[in-house]
Amino acid sequence: MTSRDGFQWTPETGLSQGVPSIGVISPSTNICSSSAKYDVIVVGAGYAGLTAARDLTLTGLHVLLIEARDRIGGRSWSSNIGEYPFEMGGTWVHWSQPHVWREISRYNMRTELEKSIDFSGGVNHFQLRTAQGSSIMSHEDEEALLSGAICKFVNVDGDMGRKVIPFPHDAFDLSEARRYDEISVQDRIDAIGLSLTPNERASLESFILLCSCATLETTSFFEFLHWWALCGYSYRGCVEALISYKFRGGQSTFAIKFFKEALATGRLSYLFTTPVSSINDPGDNVTVTTRDGRQYTGARLISTIPLNVLKSVSFDPPLDTQHTEAANTGHVNQCVRVHAEVSSKDMRSWTGISYPSNKLVYAIGDGTTPAGNAHIVCFGGSNNEIHPEEDINETKNAVESMAPGNMDVQRLVFHNWSKDDFAKGAWFFSSPGLLSSSLDAMRARHGNVLFANSDWAVGWRAFIDGAIEEGTRAAMTVKEELQPAPALPSYL
Amino acid sequence: MTSRDGFQWTPETGLSQGVPSIGVISPSTNICSSSAKYDVIVVGAGYAGLTAARDLTLTGLHVLLIEARDRIGGRSWSSNIGEYPFEMGGTWVHWSQPHVWREISRYNMRTELEKSIDFSGGVNHFQLRTAQGSSIMSHEDEEALLSGAICKFVNVDGDMGRKVIPFPHDAFDLSEARRYDEISVQDRIDAIGLSLTPNERASLESFILLCSCATLETTSFFEFLHWWALCGYSYRGCVEALISYKFRGGQSTFAIKFFKEALATGRLSYLFTTPVSSINDPGDNVTVTTRDGRQYTGARLISTIPLNVLKSVSFDPPLDTQHTEAANTGHVNQCVRVHAEVSSKDMRSWTGISYPSNKLVYAIGDGTTPAGNAHIVCFGGSNNEIHPEEDINETKNAVESMAPGNMDVQRLVFHNWSKDDFAKGAWFFSSPGLLSSSLDAMRARHGNVLFANSDWAVGWRAFIDGAIEEGTRAAMTVKEELQPAPALPSYL
Repeated sequence: MTSRDGFQWTPETGLSQGVPSIGVISPSTNICSSSAKYDVIVVGAGYAGLTAARDLTLTGLHVLLIEARDRIGGRSWSSNIGEYPFEMGGTWVHWSQPHVWREISRYNMRTELEKSIDFSGGVNHFQLRTAQGSSIMSHEDEEALLSGAICKFVNVDGDMGRKVIPFPHDAFDLSEARRYDEISVQDRIDAIGLSLTPNERASLESFILLCSCATLETTSFFEFLHWWALCGYSYRGCVEALISYKFRGGQSTFAIKFFKEALATGRLSYLFTTPVSSINDPGDNVTVTTRDGRQYTGARLISTIPLNVLKSVSFDPPLDTQHTEAANTGHVNQCVRVHAEVSSKDMRSWTGISYPSNKLVYAIGDGTTPAGNAHIVCFGGSNNEIHPEEDINETKNAVESMAPGNMDVQRLVFHNWSKDDFAKGAWFFSSPGLLSSSLDAMRARHGNVLFANSDWAVGWRAFIDGAIEEGTRAAMTVKEELQPAPALPSYL
Repeated sequence: MTSRDGFQWTPETGLSQGVPSIGVISPSTNICSSSAKYDVIVVGAGYAGLTAARDLTLTGLHVLLIEARDRIGGRSWSSNIGEYPFEMGGTWVHWSQPHVWREISRYNMRTELEKSIDFSGGVNHFQLRTAQGSSIMSHEDEEALLSGAICKFVNVDGDMGRKVIPFPHDAFDLSEARRYDEISVQDRIDAIGLSLTPNERASLESFILLCSCATLETTSFFEFLHWWALCGYSYRGCVEALISYKFRGGQSTFAIKFFKEALATGRLSYLFTTPVSSINDPGDNVTVTTRDGRQYTGARLISTIPLNVLKSVSFDPPLDTQHTEAANTGHVNQCVRVHAEVSSKDMRSWTGISYPSNKLVYAIGDGTTPAGNAHIVCFGGSNNEIHPEEDINETKNAVESMAPGNMDVQRLVFHNWSKDDFAKGAWFFSSPGLLSSSLDAMRARHGNVLFANSDWAVGWRAFIDGAIEEGTRAAMTVKEELQPAPALPSYL
């Protein structure tokens, strides 16, 4: 099946919209009428929604899953182009991510992972292109450079941030941590700038922008520290957890497990290609109205609508002030990720940074395609905005400029998350102040409506793990409410 | 309720058997007859059995949970003595343990954790007592000593073991790792002995014995490397994951959540204080016979019987050769854990090693009791065997000798796991060769009988996390078999 989402380009075919994915659900619905009343309506079929729908149907509840797109996965899905799974969004997983790993273990997919990074042959180097010039170094030197720079950056307490965020799954546990949400990474760089070499500074800024895909001014220093703490307070931990392990068959091979399991209960109804316009909770149950005017009612509704999309849906009664304000502020991640197939297979073991003038900043060899080409994945963001489909030559140039002479581009694949009405950005990253003011409000329920999205997870916020954390949380709450426990023996 | 398990001693009361715990289930059963046929019989109400019973009842299956003891939790349970939760077995949890953390998150217990270690006041030092003498050092020096020694020990590949076990949730992924299962930690110490100072050697050996509670000759070097890899290849990671975070209310506050949730489905039948004698699987269903001659039948049976107890139950048809051999070999952990309440509250921040002549080897300040006493937890094992209830003065002496003059013992609390018929040892630790020869056999099903226990988990084997991993695995398999999926649309 081919999704409407995503783009690809080859010299032969030019640019085309829509790419094949096993995550596309067709036919788009398994229900005929809107008369039924559901136990739970789940809006959104990303990992949060899939997890909630699965957990709830497994426990005997009837769920209607409504999704604006033609596919599952939300901001994480894989396209299958030439028998190769290009990852269009959230890609990497790791056993330090508890919710994700529990699912990988439960679905017995441990052996379906592979490493993105493979430094076993080929060019096997790191290429750093900055305003000062270009240099080639070994991956060991890359690690030393980045690790050294990032350690200076995060070492606010003489213990690499451990004292500020000792407990990354409740990162505001110590109030001192909130102080770092008041400043941007630019503020922090200004404070330590004199201790950084030009190469350290360029690498550090590039690495931060790889995480937030925003600008240095709009990136919360706290949230970077939070990522750092989640990754075990080390650069190696970051590389391991953030960009090392992916599914051999692509993310959609994982997401489809949740969907199939829910469907197998016989209690999952679904509607794809059905954007929602309003959610109405008069108090006894919740009615959702779709953009094309259909209405569905449930005892509870779980909204997995991303923060940046929330303001496009009207709530009655309206969301509380703080929640509305957070939705209006939004998060800042406008990641541009471009996959390139390049004919030099030796680039498999290449990594590179090109900063600050290039439209793409950070790239790594991510695999070898069936055609024998190297697969390079490149990242950019709003520090140097680009919309890859708008000028494909500019995009191709941005890829080529990462490693001039070594990037003979045979194919480009990407999803423009910024222009995607149902995402309006990539994974969550916060500007200064958003989390300390609004995290609780984003997490709070609103009558019979619960909110579940990785954007406001407490642990691996912005990750697939956070989405599963949130879907689990919402499903647990709803289950406890809709399936009142039988009287237990008094001693329990 | 008071369990038959566990012992306590005070100067006033002397030694008594049985301690109170919220994990005791009374009355011991909620069924009247044995006539019903169950979907699934789960033998054992430790975390593996509780997880399996919960997952299966949640998905609509009828489960009979049979447990030999009067309580839930198996080798992890907490006693409540003087309003204080002494941990009788498995204690610590961490977010790097994915299955445990998913459950803590799902039960919203993140804020119910507290730190065992508190170096904020009091004596605030580490005491090392060896054959060469006694020394007091700062906790920073303790960390440097232990970290340095362990790093020499694990650094078999110039990268602290990362190259040998890059993927700790599938630790035999690289065949090279198997090589290290052929040797004991004694072999490895012999190989690096010349590089160790006497203090390093004593600390290293004590730390290893804290993990395996066996002897240096009977401890697999591979399995220690596996723990190390799970802990993120660092001593700090070990301290964090192994002995830092515990439940404020005790382990049984966690275990009871699983039990209550299963019970609330109305599909859980249970029988406590009911040891099992045989399991018979003629092919169509499984019949379990209890020691007192009752029989119960289910379509599937999940045995969570620990490895060291397996040979006390007869299987018909018999277990395959390799499985039988593993059960006969058993694991080597004969941990002795003794809790002491000591009147010097300043000992809260104390840690100590006394090796090799003392009957207890390793101890840490673990809390402050409601009486204001310091709570010290001490560990020993088969390298210097002791059965704490057999000679309580010897036990008291062993505690006092950890820090002569500072251990004014007011109370002792312990569980003798070695003499416990339903455990025959503490958490799993393997002798050389057991895992490489038998891990697959221990994990394999036997007709309609599935085996689930942390003893043969692939990830955090020997930990609560591994028990939940295993319970999840067994429940998933049984669910898929007993609830055949309705026909799915052909495209899925």
